[in-house]
Amino acid sequence: MDAKGYEISPWELRWRGLDLEALHRTESTFAVSNGHIGIRGSFEEGEPRGLAGTYLNGFFEQRELPYAEAGYGYPEDGQTVVNVTDGNIIRLLIGDEPLDMRYGDAPHHERVLDFRSGTLRRTTEWVSPTGRRIRIRSERLVSFSSRAVAAIRYEVEPLDGELEVVLQSDLLANEPLPTKSDDPRVAAALDRPLVADFAAASGYRAVLAHHTRASNLYMAAGMDHEIELPADARCSIETEEDLARLTVAVDIPAGKSLCLTKYLAYGWSARRSVPALRAQVDGALAGAKETGWKTLLERQRAYLDKFWAVADVEIEGDAELQQAVRFGLFHVLQAGARGESRAIPAKGLTGPGYDGHAFWDTETYVLPVLTYTLPDSARDALRWRHTTLDKAKARAQQLGQQGAAFPWRSINGQECSGYWPAGTAAFHVGADVAAATSRYLAATGDTEFETEFGLEILVETARLWGSLGHHNSEGEFRIDGVTGPDEYTAIADNNVFTNLMAQQNLIDAATLCSKHPDLARDLGVDDEETARWRDAAEHMRLPYDDALGVHQQSDGFTHHADWDFEATPQDTYPLLLNYPYFDLYRKRVVKQADLVMALYLRGDAFTDEQKLANFLYYESITVRDSSLSACVQSVVASEVGDLQLAYDYLAEAALTDLHDLHANVSNGLHIASLAGTWLGCVAGFGGMRDYNGNITFAPRIPEQLNRLAFHMRIRGSCVSVEIRQHSATYTLTSGNSIPLSHHGEPFTLDETPVTHDIPEPPQIPRIRQPHGRAPTRRG
Amino acid sequence: MDAKGYEISPWELRWRGLDLEALHRTESTFAVSNGHIGIRGSFEEGEPRGLAGTYLNGFFEQRELPYAEAGYGYPEDGQTVVNVTDGNIIRLLIGDEPLDMRYGDAPHHERVLDFRSGTLRRTTEWVSPTGRRIRIRSERLVSFSSRAVAAIRYEVEPLDGELEVVLQSDLLANEPLPTKSDDPRVAAALDRPLVADFAAASGYRAVLAHHTRASNLYMAAGMDHEIELPADARCSIETEEDLARLTVAVDIPAGKSLCLTKYLAYGWSARRSVPALRAQVDGALAGAKETGWKTLLERQRAYLDKFWAVADVEIEGDAELQQAVRFGLFHVLQAGARGESRAIPAKGLTGPGYDGHAFWDTETYVLPVLTYTLPDSARDALRWRHTTLDKAKARAQQLGQQGAAFPWRSINGQECSGYWPAGTAAFHVGADVAAATSRYLAATGDTEFETEFGLEILVETARLWGSLGHHNSEGEFRIDGVTGPDEYTAIADNNVFTNLMAQQNLIDAATLCSKHPDLARDLGVDDEETARWRDAAEHMRLPYDDALGVHQQSDGFTHHADWDFEATPQDTYPLLLNYPYFDLYRKRVVKQADLVMALYLRGDAFTDEQKLANFLYYESITVRDSSLSACVQSVVASEVGDLQLAYDYLAEAALTDLHDLHANVSNGLHIASLAGTWLGCVAGFGGMRDYNGNITFAPRIPEQLNRLAFHMRIRGSCVSVEIRQHSATYTLTSGNSIPLSHHGEPFTLDETPVTHDIPEPPQIPRIRQPHGRAPTRRG
Repeated sequence: MDAKGYEISPWELRWRGLDLEALHRTESTFAVSNGHIGIRGSFEEGEPRGLAGTYLNGFFEQRELPYAEAGYGYPEDGQTVVNVTDGNIIRLLIGDEPLDMRYGDAPHHERVLDFRSGTLRRTTEWVSPTGRRIRIRSERLVSFSSRAVAAIRYEVEPLDGELEVVLQSDLLANEPLPTKSDDPRVAAALDRPLVADFAAASGYRAVLAHHTRASNLYMAAGMDHEIELPADARCSIETEEDLARLTVAVDIPAGKSLCLTKYLAYGWSARRSVPALRAQVDGALAGAKETGWKTLLERQRAYLDKFWAVADVEIEGDAELQQAVRFGLFHVLQAGARGESRAIPAKGLTGPGYDGHAFWDTETYVLPVLTYTLPDSARDALRWRHTTLDKAKARAQQLGQQGAAFPWRSINGQECSGYWPAGTAAFHVGADVAAATSRYLAATGDTEFETEFGLEILVETARLWGSLGHHNSEGEFRIDGVTGPDEYTAIADNNVFTNLMAQQNLIDAATLCSKHPDLARDLGVDDEETARWRDAAEHMRLPYDDALGVHQQSDGFTHHADWDFEATPQDTYPLLLNYPYFDLYRKRVVKQADLVMALYLRGDAFTDEQKLANFLYYESITVRDSSLSACVQSVVASEVGDLQLAYDYLAEAALTDLHDLHANVSNGLHIASLAGTWLGCVAGFGGMRDYNGNITFAPRIPEQLNRLAFHMRIRGSCVSVEIRQHSATYTLTSGNSIPLSHHGEPFTLDETPVTHDIPEPPQIPRIRQPHGRAPTRRG
Repeated sequence: MDAKGYEISPWELRWRGLDLEALHRTESTFAVSNGHIGIRGSFEEGEPRGLAGTYLNGFFEQRELPYAEAGYGYPEDGQTVVNVTDGNIIRLLIGDEPLDMRYGDAPHHERVLDFRSGTLRRTTEWVSPTGRRIRIRSERLVSFSSRAVAAIRYEVEPLDGELEVVLQSDLLANEPLPTKSDDPRVAAALDRPLVADFAAASGYRAVLAHHTRASNLYMAAGMDHEIELPADARCSIETEEDLARLTVAVDIPAGKSLCLTKYLAYGWSARRSVPALRAQVDGALAGAKETGWKTLLERQRAYLDKFWAVADVEIEGDAELQQAVRFGLFHVLQAGARGESRAIPAKGLTGPGYDGHAFWDTETYVLPVLTYTLPDSARDALRWRHTTLDKAKARAQQLGQQGAAFPWRSINGQECSGYWPAGTAAFHVGADVAAATSRYLAATGDTEFETEFGLEILVETARLWGSLGHHNSEGEFRIDGVTGPDEYTAIADNNVFTNLMAQQNLIDAATLCSKHPDLARDLGVDDEETARWRDAAEHMRLPYDDALGVHQQSDGFTHHADWDFEATPQDTYPLLLNYPYFDLYRKRVVKQADLVMALYLRGDAFTDEQKLANFLYYESITVRDSSLSACVQSVVASEVGDLQLAYDYLAEAALTDLHDLHANVSNGLHIASLAGTWLGCVAGFGGMRDYNGNITFAPRIPEQLNRLAFHMRIRGSCVSVEIRQHSATYTLTSGNSIPLSHHGEPFTLDETPVTHDIPEPPQIPRIRQPHGRAPTRRG
């Protein structure tokens, strides 16, 4: 067991030995999910446990947002993801001793999250306080093939002769949760959010139905079981409002074991009745039982085989990074696979952090990965945004703007940000959605999505920029008083990232309207409007400091006072928990890639010299207090030619959750950072860019690595890229030939693999970070 | 009765006739107070009533401030002024009919607030629903001479023969109040804030003692009575936890009347015990009774005679304005007379608006008036600030700054602002306190205050600027990320008003330290520190738009988008209630004088041409959504030479509460606007400036007025200024000769009055306001 607790292995995450302190954290890393249902990696026996968590994507409770001083247009209601009815619980009594790993002894204990089987396995040998010895084996999955279904295989084996056991398999609603923290990134605690509507049980099957008090969402959870029992076993099932329990009392003879298969099904709706939801859950249970455990396992593996065939990133020369990259991709898949017109939350369905909200992270970090590996899931996530357009248009209107203002944070599309300078003012989210839409359209050629959804998204987001911005007397188009990705500066004029993303948004909208003039007219767009968009894009203000030769993150930024990094103790990071916003806002300290993000996503707007100068400048003041930063810094470090720094940042992004670098993995994984690991490999070392839909590469790997290989789906074709120290090989593994570029040299990839030499990286000055904030040097 | 309900009269505010709808508002205008105790102008019979209100300066309840998203350094506790035990209530039953003016008929009813007697008088003839006819006469005062004492004289006279009456004279705690409003300027509603500690009664006297639940402040209220009763009258007194009641049942013969004198005394403390407070109140009651009603009245009048001798402003040619100016001065006196080391709240003690908090208004609007008319009260108010220095220093430290950060809003000196962009970020409050200190010192030569309190205030406020600001690469001293007086722009760089006030603060602190080197050293100030202050002041950045030829309110301000005034319905003012901050912040729309405030308070930093250009520019975008604005605009309009506009604005400021221009006088008066009326007369038409302690005048009155006269105490002398259309006469009414200036010409005023001609005003372009926001044209 290494120091961090996880063993390094290419295709699995394994933790050997018992560490109760680590449970809260490993419940997040060992979570299983299909994007619709998520179950934290808690022990079946219910306790010890860090934080109970079973989540249904989109199922939330509403609560009034309080304000010390209210203001016009402040969101009135917040949304918090609900820990729904827990079906994970299988309690075990040995004689009258409950299996509880806080007591007795565990000579062997290990858990494995298997990236290829898509299951979490557990093996525990436990010696009870009175000395009885048993082995528990369990395996659980949330099915990728049947989105409403989860299943657990649970096996008890006595190791010291015949054993009298009682098994209790539960559905449990309204579990108590730990109380609230002062950290604003932690979720609001909900006290007993579920109101009981219905409970029924017979045989091995039980169903509980509940609804939420305020948001009025309805859900049902069901369980069914398979178990082979001797004739003298006693078995009963019963329900209360918040509990359904199958109880099995049985003697297990020496040398034998008891094996229980538990099928779980979940359904929720804002519209369907309790009987309809019950029927839905009963039906899913019947289907799952008919399918059977073995076939569920096979389908799970088949789904993952297909995923890895396109999504896998192979790294030779750094086994820990290899594992971390696959861990990240596995969880990105778990977050996004079967969301199906629901949001992909910042934490996926692995914990209650950020109240279960989705942010711009989804479009900017997660969707690029899905777009090029699992495009249907990217499409579904964009469809979710489209379903919220009405809310976004109403919000824009409330804010006195035209078009659509997507929320900064939300579960159902309603703005839930209770602090507008770092919420509503971060209007770039609209351009991020637009960029993800353009990217998806270019990468897939999905004309159906383009005409039905994409055009409207682009038009309404462009309209927002049209009304948010204005021309000054010199004819520049300004966007004032907004907040960019860096939350340590807020309500600033002409944030370069925002302005460049808005520029692309305006151009893409105008272009698509020209392509579909009739549809554009249906949306009320005329030539005057598109001309205004093009003009605004052309004259977009990008503040630049001539004296320093760098862009200003926003107007005046480079004239602000230095943050005193030397006087800032390392244990006061993240700064937002230890310094007031007012002081952060007015000083040169950057929470996360902002101008540097623009260097990546809108690199076509900068010269190479500007990229280097800007990167040098902003690196020296960026503290990475956000998990969204390291991967982007890795990408740009690769581009400017500092491969060691790129490697360091990539490892930081990849290990964010495995090493708990932000000390909050217990509240859920950082899905964007995990997705960013793919970006670090593909856009960073692979140098992949997709400006205006043109796919280009500029690969270069650090000396510590021998080989990096990845794949991308592009317009129905599949391209494999294999990078070695001095050359890169491009292979078309399926589909039609495709125009690409290698370090600026265009070529067309057809059936014949192509190998190109990699030029030497440029000589560059030493890049420095703020005092104490350099990434850990790797390799 | 005129349309607004008040009658115009030079020395009183009279309302004739009954208007139940107006009660809520007139309770504020008819409030009586001495700055320590405040009693709203409710009827003695308790109902009908708009809002019960008896306040003790500094007596508040604490409540947790809620945040949808918390942040480091946000204040945790708010403070709300408490409606304390009500001693105003004298109920009357005629037979078994309670006197209630909602029923029956009132053939005659009038109330008079007399600015010279310092009392509120009432005369009511009432016909009961069953036809009995009575006359009620009452008079009440809160004593200027005995700060703990109030008194009411109440007389009942039957008009149609012998009358059987029951009088109930109450002390009543925890009165129900109307529920909360959505308007953030309204106070938080407190539900039964007082916990009963003690109640006792005997004879005609009763005392109730209570404390607040959370803030743990203790108070006692007592009443005693004088009444002449026939032998067969029944009289009893009794107490409950929240009620003490004297009941008198008596027959009043035809042609006679019943007269009750009620003495009230209040005491509160955070430290003294209940028995000590009770003794204090009993003592005050005994003293008041010994003094007697007649002598209380005489002392009240004597106090006011003395006040008016210096404070009166005489206006010939506008009777309504004359009344309004005196009404304003009377209430300024009531707010500030006997505060004695407590804050002067924005509403005085006339209502619960703004939770009873004091803001920068006190130092900037109220203290100039008191400094030149009642300097001891100005001193006491500044002593209050000094008593809060520890809290202000702790707050600065919490914010990572040096020196003292005075709160944006507070009752006891603790920051209570729940929205930091318009609260904590408004650091100018520190410079405002410093400016008021410098002004007081220059106007009085109070060396004791200077060495004991003034120096420390100036040093600690200067230190804050030293740490808030920094030099940029061109050597300019910048103060970034702050909010000036205009709350429609926030978190801006280099707000000109703030920077100029900070500049003066730094210079004054350095100058005073040079004067008192030993004391400065005791405060840790060395020559390096004062040199840094002087350097920062010298290089203070003042953003200027060369193209427009105007100063920028803050960096970049003039490049912001226009607010669309034409498209803004007049009923959406104040804009903050109908538009989001984000949109207000980033557009060219100004809530209240900000740059224009700088033109007045730091006019020495601008040329005449700059003043005119700036005033023209900012007038066109200032909407006056704050009652702090009109008076300042009046002052600057006078200076640039638009006397009509100055007159319009002066009238608006003066009539703010009498005409309820902000539709919220029901929650209390706008003390700063009332004080600003004096500024409009003295600094506006009188052209009085006191830059660096030099008193100068540049008088000029609008053609509608024949004469304007006012007085000022300056360093122990008293100067009278009488302005007519073409000349001004300066008279030294007491004290030593004094150097003055008339329209730029210095002269020394000694025993001989001096008359100077007034030059013609300059020709200036037409000054325009935003669509629909021009002040009402007067005269």
